[in-house]
Amino acid sequence: MSADASVENGGHEGRRDFLKGALTAGGVVASLATTGLSSVSNADAQPGMVPGTKNHYYVPATDRTVHWGYFSKSLKPLVEVNSGDFVTIEALTHHANDDAERMIKGDPGAESVFSWDKQRKGVDRRGAGPIKPTLFGRGAGEGLGVHICTGPVYVHGAAPGDILEVRIVDVRPRPCANPRYKGKSFGSNAAAWWGFHYKDLLTEPKPREVITIYELDASGERNWAQAVYNFQWTPQTDPFGVVHKIIDYPGVPVDHRTVKENHGILKNVRVPIRPHFGVLGLAPAEADIVDSIPPNYVGGNIDDWRIGRGATMYYPVAVPGALLSAGDSHAAQGDSELAGTAIECSLTGTFQLIVRKKDTLRGTALNGLNYPLLETQDEWVLHGFTYPNYLVDLGPDAQSKIYEKSSVDLAMRDAFRKMRHFLMTTKGLSENEAISLMSVAVDFGITQVVDGNWGVHATIKKSIFAGG
Amino acid sequence: MSADASVENGGHEGRRDFLKGALTAGGVVASLATTGLSSVSNADAQPGMVPGTKNHYYVPATDRTVHWGYFSKSLKPLVEVNSGDFVTIEALTHHANDDAERMIKGDPGAESVFSWDKQRKGVDRRGAGPIKPTLFGRGAGEGLGVHICTGPVYVHGAAPGDILEVRIVDVRPRPCANPRYKGKSFGSNAAAWWGFHYKDLLTEPKPREVITIYELDASGERNWAQAVYNFQWTPQTDPFGVVHKIIDYPGVPVDHRTVKENHGILKNVRVPIRPHFGVLGLAPAEADIVDSIPPNYVGGNIDDWRIGRGATMYYPVAVPGALLSAGDSHAAQGDSELAGTAIECSLTGTFQLIVRKKDTLRGTALNGLNYPLLETQDEWVLHGFTYPNYLVDLGPDAQSKIYEKSSVDLAMRDAFRKMRHFLMTTKGLSENEAISLMSVAVDFGITQVVDGNWGVHATIKKSIFAGG
Repeated sequence: MSADASVENGGHEGRRDFLKGALTAGGVVASLATTGLSSVSNADAQPGMVPGTKNHYYVPATDRTVHWGYFSKSLKPLVEVNSGDFVTIEALTHHANDDAERMIKGDPGAESVFSWDKQRKGVDRRGAGPIKPTLFGRGAGEGLGVHICTGPVYVHGAAPGDILEVRIVDVRPRPCANPRYKGKSFGSNAAAWWGFHYKDLLTEPKPREVITIYELDASGERNWAQAVYNFQWTPQTDPFGVVHKIIDYPGVPVDHRTVKENHGILKNVRVPIRPHFGVLGLAPAEADIVDSIPPNYVGGNIDDWRIGRGATMYYPVAVPGALLSAGDSHAAQGDSELAGTAIECSLTGTFQLIVRKKDTLRGTALNGLNYPLLETQDEWVLHGFTYPNYLVDLGPDAQSKIYEKSSVDLAMRDAFRKMRHFLMTTKGLSENEAISLMSVAVDFGITQVVDGNWGVHATIKKSIFAGG
Repeated sequence: MSADASVENGGHEGRRDFLKGALTAGGVVASLATTGLSSVSNADAQPGMVPGTKNHYYVPATDRTVHWGYFSKSLKPLVEVNSGDFVTIEALTHHANDDAERMIKGDPGAESVFSWDKQRKGVDRRGAGPIKPTLFGRGAGEGLGVHICTGPVYVHGAAPGDILEVRIVDVRPRPCANPRYKGKSFGSNAAAWWGFHYKDLLTEPKPREVITIYELDASGERNWAQAVYNFQWTPQTDPFGVVHKIIDYPGVPVDHRTVKENHGILKNVRVPIRPHFGVLGLAPAEADIVDSIPPNYVGGNIDDWRIGRGATMYYPVAVPGALLSAGDSHAAQGDSELAGTAIECSLTGTFQLIVRKKDTLRGTALNGLNYPLLETQDEWVLHGFTYPNYLVDLGPDAQSKIYEKSSVDLAMRDAFRKMRHFLMTTKGLSENEAISLMSVAVDFGITQVVDGNWGVHATIKKSIFAGG
């Protein structure tokens, strides 16, 4: 189950060697250099095998490889892989157009995804709403779902009832392609209308949305990010002529002649980086075209900063092939993601995908797993939500209702029930033992209060079970 | 503000030397041996100066030095100390009678506090209810408040509007005084009717209350606790003849002939110890005889396991002399204290108390502080509650109403507001800067969901502000 056991699934020498290299520096750190990859993609790049490696696929982010703002079980897979294979996936932040100079310019992949003129958008549908924006008039998909997701990846042999194990071998910031900012990466933090703070501001003007641009070192040598400047959102007119008074549609280009940049902010403040994927998960079975915002039993937008390098995620498979996608990449986030977003920053991740068949799970930590489970070197982290499977729990209107039902209290209850299940099922404890142990040794934290289906995570140290 | 600056307040050589000794081993660890103290108290012990030291007071736990289940601004102080003085306080767990053989027998202090026969209780009032138990007939004070609190300590010069800084220099488990269990300490975990799990059980009988007895090493060499046995609560008849069907009154002796002890539970499970004071705080001004269970702006039953050795707490002073008490000592607790209690275990703490006068706070992290603030070596931790000052917020019936209003969602909002205040007031950030930083670098966790006034804590790393 742990990362250091990662050659157990039918690995051959080539894959073993890759992983050996990947594990050299500081635990689980893959060097993309050793794979012969450039970490900047090309808009013409096609998903496929990585030259010079075996069973390692590369999925660039382009207008032809992303689905924006939704999950769908009907999407055609970009690649089909076998259990044990590696896949490197580029994720683009949907906030890149908050500062196109720093996050899009010169980057063919990002340019293809964000391209938008009077006639045409590189990616038209953004969100799970109607293609013809008859609901709000914001744009195709209506922004009901916002994350640029790269995928899906089809995993041979993964069937409903199985578990997909996703080992996060490497996570790297996407270097800025604009020569002016060589060696740096950038991210955007939006304190937006869906944030927990929005109706609870002290100072004028109220309410307001504020974008803060952060920079980090693309080499990964520095472990902090710094603010560059911030600006208050002003009504932005998109190339189709729609005015966006608030941040109601993803990827709207911000015209910097219309905003006031405040530089010199957050002086001497260093934000510890925690690169991770806000969205990582599988296509759900219960509905098609599902809003990417609320997390669910198959993962998705969990927004737990622990889902980074060296961690392993386990997801219940809901559809044939599992259909994994990655997006909403973050350079750093606090537990709660208070203001609505993290440091939204394009990242590239390398994953090993392993199918755990339903009939092999008894006696393992995956037995009966019906929620996304995170394993780190030292901990198990279970993810609870306001509604564990809101698509079923809230009926046919679930995708709108979930936003009216958000509750940390309910997410706490779900996390409690899941940890009890985990301790009873996989550790063989009685209910009395499980409940006592939870009270004295399990930590419950607030994952996020901004994704409709709010999250509470429960963490237990593995060393607790190492006694003799 | 940090522990290593602890001689700044008028220290003389004697105190400096004590602290120097205290800081020798592993950061902030006082050796009680160097103070000439025995860590086991005597029922005849009186609060007072510690022989061989200067300005170090010792407050044993006896029937004459504890207030059980309530705070009160009218209590006569046990000792009066000056700013900068040290005080060692014994705290007894109110769950000691769950297993008197292991937690009371042979310990004169505990025996005096828990003594109860047909005629007389060592400590009659237990809780903030009426002395004549006309409400529920449970006993004096009606168990409306449960913690055995040792104190109060009066600090000269502390006035309303000031801050009392409480440096936790040392925390030690109270050794079992029964020769049969030499070298061990014990604690009790009650999965009780006020727990988050109680109405949400899977297995029969439902509902039920379960006590789990844990043991730990009294020397502190081992950093884990282990379960010894558990039993289901059965109706217990107290010495006055009142039957307690559930755990509705603190300190009721459990007759072990009436319960079934299950040994061999939680096999191979080691619970990391986190010795701390569940209750540490000051007398509030808003009411007299205040239930010890809901935490408040002056601290009290915060139940944050970080309030242990090496940490410093800052409390707003509400009454002259501050009136500090300690109790509800815990060997370990998880964030949320899910089932209602921690490993409730008698501990002895050594504290340095420093008055921070109102007019000296500008430009410090204490400016405008109106909530309990925790400082550790690496972090600031702010405590939010469902209602920040429930005694005022909920009006005259606050002490009963608070139990109907419990909410993590509201505690999250309070923690957000407090962290914003902290960042704006003490770090000089604008509201926009503070909100962005909270979203990308502050972690919100669930302190407890069992104390009426539920808690969310917000943690920020100090190193964030160390950049240049």
